[in-house]
Amino acid sequence: MQVILIGPDKQQILDIMPDETILSALQRYSIPVAAPCGGKGTCGKCRVSVDGLGMILSCQMHLSPEVWRQAGLTSDKPLVVRLPEPVQAQISTDGLLPAMTLNPLVYKGRAEMPEPSLTDQRPDDQRFYDAAGKTIPYSLLPQLPAVMRKSGYKPSYYFRRDTGAIVAFTHENRPEPLGMAIDIGTTTLAAYLCDLGQGIRLASASMLNPQSIFGADVISRIEQAAGGQQKALRQTIVRAIGDLAGRLIDKACRKTGFNYQREDIAHLVLAGNTTMIHLLAGFPADAIARSPFIPVSLQALTLTAADLELSLNPHAVCQLLPSIAGYVGADITAGILACGLNHLNDDGGKRASLLLDIGTNGEIVLSGPQGMIACSTAAGPAFEGANITCGMGGVQGAIDQVALTGDDLTWTLIGSDLDKDNPSDSQTLARGLCGSGLVAALAVLLEAGLVDETGRITDEPETLPPLLGKRVCQIDGQAAVILAEAAKSAAGEPIYLSQKDIREVQNAKAAIAAGIALLIEQAGLRPEQIDQVFIAGGFGNYLDVRHAFRIGLLPEALNGRTRAVGNTAGMGALYCLLDQDALKEASAAAEQVTYYELSADRRFTDLYIEAMLFPEGNL
Amino acid sequence: MQVILIGPDKQQILDIMPDETILSALQRYSIPVAAPCGGKGTCGKCRVSVDGLGMILSCQMHLSPEVWRQAGLTSDKPLVVRLPEPVQAQISTDGLLPAMTLNPLVYKGRAEMPEPSLTDQRPDDQRFYDAAGKTIPYSLLPQLPAVMRKSGYKPSYYFRRDTGAIVAFTHENRPEPLGMAIDIGTTTLAAYLCDLGQGIRLASASMLNPQSIFGADVISRIEQAAGGQQKALRQTIVRAIGDLAGRLIDKACRKTGFNYQREDIAHLVLAGNTTMIHLLAGFPADAIARSPFIPVSLQALTLTAADLELSLNPHAVCQLLPSIAGYVGADITAGILACGLNHLNDDGGKRASLLLDIGTNGEIVLSGPQGMIACSTAAGPAFEGANITCGMGGVQGAIDQVALTGDDLTWTLIGSDLDKDNPSDSQTLARGLCGSGLVAALAVLLEAGLVDETGRITDEPETLPPLLGKRVCQIDGQAAVILAEAAKSAAGEPIYLSQKDIREVQNAKAAIAAGIALLIEQAGLRPEQIDQVFIAGGFGNYLDVRHAFRIGLLPEALNGRTRAVGNTAGMGALYCLLDQDALKEASAAAEQVTYYELSADRRFTDLYIEAMLFPEGNL
Repeated sequence: MQVILIGPDKQQILDIMPDETILSALQRYSIPVAAPCGGKGTCGKCRVSVDGLGMILSCQMHLSPEVWRQAGLTSDKPLVVRLPEPVQAQISTDGLLPAMTLNPLVYKGRAEMPEPSLTDQRPDDQRFYDAAGKTIPYSLLPQLPAVMRKSGYKPSYYFRRDTGAIVAFTHENRPEPLGMAIDIGTTTLAAYLCDLGQGIRLASASMLNPQSIFGADVISRIEQAAGGQQKALRQTIVRAIGDLAGRLIDKACRKTGFNYQREDIAHLVLAGNTTMIHLLAGFPADAIARSPFIPVSLQALTLTAADLELSLNPHAVCQLLPSIAGYVGADITAGILACGLNHLNDDGGKRASLLLDIGTNGEIVLSGPQGMIACSTAAGPAFEGANITCGMGGVQGAIDQVALTGDDLTWTLIGSDLDKDNPSDSQTLARGLCGSGLVAALAVLLEAGLVDETGRITDEPETLPPLLGKRVCQIDGQAAVILAEAAKSAAGEPIYLSQKDIREVQNAKAAIAAGIALLIEQAGLRPEQIDQVFIAGGFGNYLDVRHAFRIGLLPEALNGRTRAVGNTAGMGALYCLLDQDALKEASAAAEQVTYYELSADRRFTDLYIEAMLFPEGNL
Repeated sequence: MQVILIGPDKQQILDIMPDETILSALQRYSIPVAAPCGGKGTCGKCRVSVDGLGMILSCQMHLSPEVWRQAGLTSDKPLVVRLPEPVQAQISTDGLLPAMTLNPLVYKGRAEMPEPSLTDQRPDDQRFYDAAGKTIPYSLLPQLPAVMRKSGYKPSYYFRRDTGAIVAFTHENRPEPLGMAIDIGTTTLAAYLCDLGQGIRLASASMLNPQSIFGADVISRIEQAAGGQQKALRQTIVRAIGDLAGRLIDKACRKTGFNYQREDIAHLVLAGNTTMIHLLAGFPADAIARSPFIPVSLQALTLTAADLELSLNPHAVCQLLPSIAGYVGADITAGILACGLNHLNDDGGKRASLLLDIGTNGEIVLSGPQGMIACSTAAGPAFEGANITCGMGGVQGAIDQVALTGDDLTWTLIGSDLDKDNPSDSQTLARGLCGSGLVAALAVLLEAGLVDETGRITDEPETLPPLLGKRVCQIDGQAAVILAEAAKSAAGEPIYLSQKDIREVQNAKAAIAAGIALLIEQAGLRPEQIDQVFIAGGFGNYLDVRHAFRIGLLPEALNGRTRAVGNTAGMGALYCLLDQDALKEASAAAEQVTYYELSADRRFTDLYIEAMLFPEGNL
């Protein structure tokens, strides 16, 4: 049986396996539809429209003949499935980058050598070595005779300066080698293209991680991998990296007018959390998902594009940055480098800094006079919009800010400023609530008295100003606060926070606050002694920190010392691309960090319970 | 259109491409039929029988509809093609092996390590390294979690002692690692299986090189590779090595009763001439075929079975021995080690030895007080039976010895002693003349006066004893000497030496004799100063050296100092398998040899012309 899949800009025919779900068919064909719960049917977010049947959860509909019958079709006709409209990702690719001197790993070279003769019968590899002083790996030897002869015995090549090994053969008229830095986030991918000869950043690009079809969080993806999808997950990310490379090359060509090609990319540096790195490297990750949370490897790996099955120059050097623990990954190692946490007290000072990366897990690193310690709090995906009834990622149409204006709430949407003079529905109608909007909403509800310090939605809305009081209601048998009425919602249904949603936020913020408190305690410090708090990631960029302090996500004592530092994972990868010594620095930094396991720690549990209440205070 | 191919023990259906030849179809399907000239139609030896059409050269019949018509078939019916009866190869696998101490590269190990816990969250690779002190290559990391957990954190493995890297994971109940040494000859393959733990040779096996379907000599194969068959040639040898491994394992199991498996083979050492090594390694070899005869690489390469695409344990270490020049290959390097030529004067002596390997090319190495020099003489394939009207390889049914008995010639056949009490036709009927038979025949014809010292067949046969005189006749317009009458021939046609055949032998023996003379001159020696002559290969085993001296293949001054040393290439490879330091020794030896290029050498030409005549003398 067949399905016609109609997407926003193309349609294709899928051959269906007996009784599989629409989601599993979409997964087989690597069609990117977000499925945050990975197909368990708990999140209700993988909706598609089926002609004749209406909106359906794609993970719940088994494609049996009965479905065709219900849709009014005979089984030789294809079922028509329509994907939701795409949302425009708004992913921050900028961030902090430490001062540095250009010192790339891969250079371009050219050698001249005498032609062979009966009195000079040296084999090609030795003739090349004698002239260029470079060794040729086995995989490149088959190309050597043609390269030497076609270039008139003046071959051009990219080579590694550390080992003197050839990375790839190129041509005289090709550019200096290009490098690509990539941060593989669970939710988003960010990539950067550089001219390694001049250290110029040629282009940036980002996209949603298409593995989201296998689940929003790392645990869902690990379960899918262990359940037989290991190869599919790898292929999905491999294809995405290839797509990003293509987009970066296109952008660089448009920007410079030069004819760059994928083959010019000779060096890649990849950051990502430990699970993303495992899925890319082809390592089974299931032991990360269960106690005691053991990864296969945390070490920096220097491989080739062929090893990783990337559709790039197969000989390109690919470096995976080192991770710190199962839940403190190479993205955090890169962040440590980007923020300079590993050099904080190189001058013998007594500074202390925190690095926070808040996503499904809130990773926290404290660098102080005693060195670096890190932990990972299972914050849950609330701040990424999952587990929240009207939650969503930080994409177009998401409420990202909420304010108390006069006697009522107002809000702003991501993407509403894209074309201010001619706003479309998608710019004025809300689709849901992203992480920063969630924090803002709760801060404002606390401030306005709609929610008390225990997190309870008031049961006396009549004591509030009427416009605010009217927002409190009952939905599906529980108290809720309406943020956007049905008329202001893209789906025509109100966007609200339920009592359960607020409990999710309480859990998440308590976990992070407790983690911060614990690391400060472990370092023998008091919160006042922290000089600077780096908040990494898109969440940090969009977050109004006043709201974060108001709900107790961050301890009040750190107020005034926070700094949003953007995509530090990507910046750290970029740093390693531009300075070949940075990979050693990364390995040293990853080893220096003491990982603090919270899952069985009593003191953490105490701090977590303490942090559950919302603090008193004012915005 | 289709062909039914009927072989000696199976039949199969081949789908034919429009107008291709039978030979190219056989090549596409990797069916081993000897085609010495590689399909040029000059050797006339790739005969098959086609029902309705009789015996046909498989390279000459283009499978057009016309062929079907001639065979009395409609084109929807398959044409029936019958392969010739197989001949049993009789390949010498024994040979000289230097004294040595067992010191293999790959060992078996087992480590015990604590299970992970929340207070010991080391990643798998680090836990393994801390317990075993061994590193794990990237390609094996995906196996690590299962290996550790299934073994109860007591994994067993094969490892390299030089680098401390894991070669493969194994099981507690598996044996010590096995090693395989292989000599890839142009005509034949020989392989040996060893228990590396005890240094015991478990089995030997040999086969004809199935690349013979692409031509008998290296030039034909290089031409085929350059003409688009590079991959096919590689796959053919790769498959043959897999077959040999399977046969070796079977033999070892039968011999010992132990359940050996292919996965237990952890180390391979491969010797072969430079072209055979190139074809296996996937290197273009065409520059070897034309002046100035440049190979891609001569160096020793340490790879994995996966690199060579071998269907063995993909992580097994594969070492290709180093070569000396385009026409003095790794088989000769191995021979130097096997005969100890590289250590000949380690004690400061003034000994001199020659190593001869006579095949299509006659490779000659002289080791003397001044070091080692080598050359390769383009002897042509006469001694392998090609270019000789009734020539054939050293396989069953070949005349291998000829004698003057009373007033007539007598001869013996290879394989005639296989079942003496119950001889079959194939044991008593001659099929042709192999190299040693050719040398013997010519020596005897010289001795009996049927051929004079210029190589001319007598035109006065009536002056000879009648039985001998009757053997001289005219065939196809030229003088010939009948060796076996039609009644004693398997094909029912006489087996003879033509005047042209004798010229071929003269060319071949002159090339080798001149090469020997030149090296002795170059070394500043006289023939009397050569202490020992090692004659390698099957030809050396079957050759009666008296005949070689009689026809002037070897200078008379060396008489009494020759030694047949068997498959020195295989023995040298075996030596490198059993002693990990031997590969370095091989590289050093290959570098020590000064290669002497003969192709434009005037002195060689002079010596060659001098050596063309047959010497006077007696058997």
